[in-house]
Amino acid sequence: MDKVSIEKMIDLIKDYWTPLDIFRVNDTIVRLVKIKGKYHWHKHKNQDELFIVLKGILKINLKNRQIVLHEGEGFVVKQGTLHQSEADEETVVFLVESSDIVTKGD
Amino acid sequence: MDKVSIEKMIDLIKDYWTPLDIFRVNDTIVRLVKIKGKYHWHKHKNQDELFIVLKGILKINLKNRQIVLHEGEGFVVKQGTLHQSEADEETVVFLVESSDIVTKGD
Repeated sequence: MDKVSIEKMIDLIKDYWTPLDIFRVNDTIVRLVKIKGKYHWHKHKNQDELFIVLKGILKINLKNRQIVLHEGEGFVVKQGTLHQSEADEETVVFLVESSDIVTKGD
Repeated sequence: MDKVSIEKMIDLIKDYWTPLDIFRVNDTIVRLVKIKGKYHWHKHKNQDELFIVLKGILKINLKNRQIVLHEGEGFVVKQGTLHQSEADEETVVFLVESSDIVTKGD
């Protein structure tokens, strides 16, 4: 494998809510996703999920609070935690999660 | 857990070659490390290791080539690959690796 430019990978992403896998590290996948609007409430039964904001502002809605992430800030949604991603403007998020992650609506 | 500012975490690091764990995602650790100079040649028998440069320039020396990473570029050193990290000036690296990683000299 050659080196990967994160900026170039971001430019390849045309659609919102469609993650692009950029690295695999053991059983972990690093992905980039562009988002705008709201995702549905969901949880991952056995998988933690790390969100780091590269551009924009990401709101992670949890049952009892809202986490607001600006550029360079990150947050881990622990397994089994109901959450919803939300962004008012186009936001680019760096994700670290298990390769066998399954989104489960709730 | 609360959100984490990567910039604030970088400011906490005082010593070179001393990673600071900032996130745990399942069995994966995300760490920041400041480096300058050369590390010893080593490999990780069963563990991939992802390097992303946040500041500076990282050279990853492999047996037959050298990978030069600038800011926003990343590279995965696959398990079992002999490698050496090198930076002429202070460089900040974002690492994603298994929580049970062991450095094995060779």
